[in-house]
Amino acid sequence: MPASDVPVIPVILCGGSGTRLWPVSRKDFAKQHAPILQGLSPFQETLRRFATTAFARPIVIAGAGGRFMAAEQARAVGVDVEMALEPEGRDTAAAIAVAAQLAALRDPAAVAMVFPSDHLIEDTDALHAAVMAAAAAAQEGRIVTIGVRPDGPATGFGYIRPGAPLPGGARAVARFIEKPDAVTAAALIAQGCLWNAGMFCFRADALLAELERLAPDTASAVAQAVAEAREDLGALLLGPSFAQAPKISFDYAVMERTDRAAVVNGDFGWSDIGDWKEVWRRSPQDADGNAATGAVMMTDCRDSYIRSDAGRLICALGVEGLTVIDTPDAVLVAPLERTQEVKGLVSALMAQGRPEATTPARVHRPWGWYQTMDLGERFRVKRIQVGPGKKLSLQRHHHRAEHWVVVKGTAEVTRDAEIILLRENESVYLPLGCVHRLANPGKIAVEIIEVQTGAYLEEDDIIRIEDDFGRG
Amino acid sequence: MPASDVPVIPVILCGGSGTRLWPVSRKDFAKQHAPILQGLSPFQETLRRFATTAFARPIVIAGAGGRFMAAEQARAVGVDVEMALEPEGRDTAAAIAVAAQLAALRDPAAVAMVFPSDHLIEDTDALHAAVMAAAAAAQEGRIVTIGVRPDGPATGFGYIRPGAPLPGGARAVARFIEKPDAVTAAALIAQGCLWNAGMFCFRADALLAELERLAPDTASAVAQAVAEAREDLGALLLGPSFAQAPKISFDYAVMERTDRAAVVNGDFGWSDIGDWKEVWRRSPQDADGNAATGAVMMTDCRDSYIRSDAGRLICALGVEGLTVIDTPDAVLVAPLERTQEVKGLVSALMAQGRPEATTPARVHRPWGWYQTMDLGERFRVKRIQVGPGKKLSLQRHHHRAEHWVVVKGTAEVTRDAEIILLRENESVYLPLGCVHRLANPGKIAVEIIEVQTGAYLEEDDIIRIEDDFGRG
Repeated sequence: MPASDVPVIPVILCGGSGTRLWPVSRKDFAKQHAPILQGLSPFQETLRRFATTAFARPIVIAGAGGRFMAAEQARAVGVDVEMALEPEGRDTAAAIAVAAQLAALRDPAAVAMVFPSDHLIEDTDALHAAVMAAAAAAQEGRIVTIGVRPDGPATGFGYIRPGAPLPGGARAVARFIEKPDAVTAAALIAQGCLWNAGMFCFRADALLAELERLAPDTASAVAQAVAEAREDLGALLLGPSFAQAPKISFDYAVMERTDRAAVVNGDFGWSDIGDWKEVWRRSPQDADGNAATGAVMMTDCRDSYIRSDAGRLICALGVEGLTVIDTPDAVLVAPLERTQEVKGLVSALMAQGRPEATTPARVHRPWGWYQTMDLGERFRVKRIQVGPGKKLSLQRHHHRAEHWVVVKGTAEVTRDAEIILLRENESVYLPLGCVHRLANPGKIAVEIIEVQTGAYLEEDDIIRIEDDFGRG
Repeated sequence: MPASDVPVIPVILCGGSGTRLWPVSRKDFAKQHAPILQGLSPFQETLRRFATTAFARPIVIAGAGGRFMAAEQARAVGVDVEMALEPEGRDTAAAIAVAAQLAALRDPAAVAMVFPSDHLIEDTDALHAAVMAAAAAAQEGRIVTIGVRPDGPATGFGYIRPGAPLPGGARAVARFIEKPDAVTAAALIAQGCLWNAGMFCFRADALLAELERLAPDTASAVAQAVAEAREDLGALLLGPSFAQAPKISFDYAVMERTDRAAVVNGDFGWSDIGDWKEVWRRSPQDADGNAATGAVMMTDCRDSYIRSDAGRLICALGVEGLTVIDTPDAVLVAPLERTQEVKGLVSALMAQGRPEATTPARVHRPWGWYQTMDLGERFRVKRIQVGPGKKLSLQRHHHRAEHWVVVKGTAEVTRDAEIILLRENESVYLPLGCVHRLANPGKIAVEIIEVQTGAYLEEDDIIRIEDDFGRG
């Protein structure tokens, strides 16, 4: 059977967080889930790239924190995924070992192809062609990386030096090269080196054998974690042995040490969307080099990226090479040339204990999301959305009463012994101390406005009596 | 009686709007009422400067649009004022003629001193000394202006060339000079010229005589408008003849033509707070020349002014000479050097019909204020504050129902035939079409959260049945 006819299993690594695109992406709202460049998130775009018959059901390796977001975003684009949950992040060697184990459970000879979930790829056809070339080499037992053709002497990536040609079009890897300086990078490019973009292709049994040989601690910890795994709300929760896996990258653990490494060329408009400057470069620009999203008025500006994500009007006058990123609770203003430093800025905010560093204004939960819209001395107003068929925990509070007004959909409200069905424009009062629950029994999302009153209005004033999502 | 013992009547001109400090000040929230540099507004600071026994009850000349704001802000600082309302703005000659008429009604020999309401004065004692010197000359029948000692060759003001000394320390005015270029300005300063800051002092009868002689149309229109005036909700509403007054400045109509013009020196840290650069100059700065208010983190920034007025966190990284002004619904980003151009930017926004150009997020009304906190497809959430003893109109809507939750104070709610007293944490539902009214019978402000639902949620869906403030 020619390699191109084998359905490849896409493996989507969805564990990172990414603070370089703060304030849009944050620790609790990872870059792969934020709609950075289009209406869909990079994770959703990644899933959609493989929604063809050439690919099998994707395996998503997610962290426990991002699982509901990943599941919801996959559901929203109609892609059915097999999801494995890491109890904690142990870097890419362990994550890819999990994928190899799960692929082998389907078929030991299955070919899997690993993709990060937060990258941009402009030309899907060219990507598919590269994947098919990689899969052909993987069929022969090679561990294959797609080397991306550089479009400039970037210093933020490792490089791959291709070696001897192999049958079928791939080449052996002569050497992996660490992130170089700009002069070295230019020389490497002149010599035909490629970017290492973290995309790997392998036959499941071949990789498992290499892992046994080159990374036995990773192999055994992961094998045990998979054996211990249990089904949890539609995902596979890996067992506690996962924590024993060494924290090491797949590059270090396998690629740089195996004699089976191969590389195929990729040229498909790839970007890791590593900072706001890169987002600006990839956005449609006007004649003055300006890019904008949302309600933005730019007067006499040049080479700037201005983003209004919260409905506010942003007027920029006479700025050049600047970015302004406006979100409901935080604004970033910086020269595009310095947006690599945003990561450090977020670390400084974390050190100061600023909640904006980690948590977005819209807080995502397994059942939907909430967002504080107004906050006063003794009250807080939230908008709350509950997905179809979802419900919040059965709960009560010691310090606040709540008023709920349904503004969209139909809500089922439990209040002590009562169960009340509320339609749009109906409301209910939940006195302090009552046991209550908000549920959406319908087929469309429910939205309510919640007005809390009381002397203490933080999230930790909650006693959970029962929860669909196993939260205490 | 020495002049310094005469209680001078402060006249506060409160008619302008001022868009140069957009987005904090707007057409519907004039600069003199916005807390630009301190917790109090420039108007309030102006009133407080004259709250001593050396001054009589102030006369405030306000526009119909700003009257409730002016009254509320005067009340908030505990200053009792006599307020006259211009049916329309007719420039300063007419406004000052009104003040002269009202002062003459108290005492024809009363001395009045005119001040703009939107200027900053740092040294109140020095101001008082200058006013006393001006009042002494005014007692002798002079029309006196306070000439401000320039602190730089500004091109945005007119200049005054002092002439021959008069008995008592004032000098005659040799010449008024139009706004010069920078070179001329520097020469004028070297020659001892002073800034014309729009502060004028006169004996009521003396000015009325000069107006008769030099500006008879203004004098007669204003005399008639005062004769036609009627009491309206605690203010004096000038009659329709006011519209006949020529639209001309006091400088042109009187000062440049009278032979009674005199000038006294003023050196009291004066500023017209004409743009954001000036606000930055007058704000406390750190060692790098940065000034900030609100939740602002500046990293490696220089000579910048960043203002967070809506509770959002603003992170600025590596910017220089920049201003960022953040308000609930609009953000300005511009180099401080170009903030003079904000006025033009606001004109462009007006031409586009952007509501942010003219109306602030918090909309002030005679009874208090409201602010939209959340807006969805078929709902709107407002926070509404009603002052003690105030009430909204008796009204109904054709397209929306409303839910009110009291979060502060005690509200009296009329709903068709019912009258309901609501305390904090109580709520009421107002079905579509019902006749309703919100009132505050108490001694502290009432705040409610209003959730509107319906297909059309704009302000013009309102039928007013009865209104304390004469609105249709």
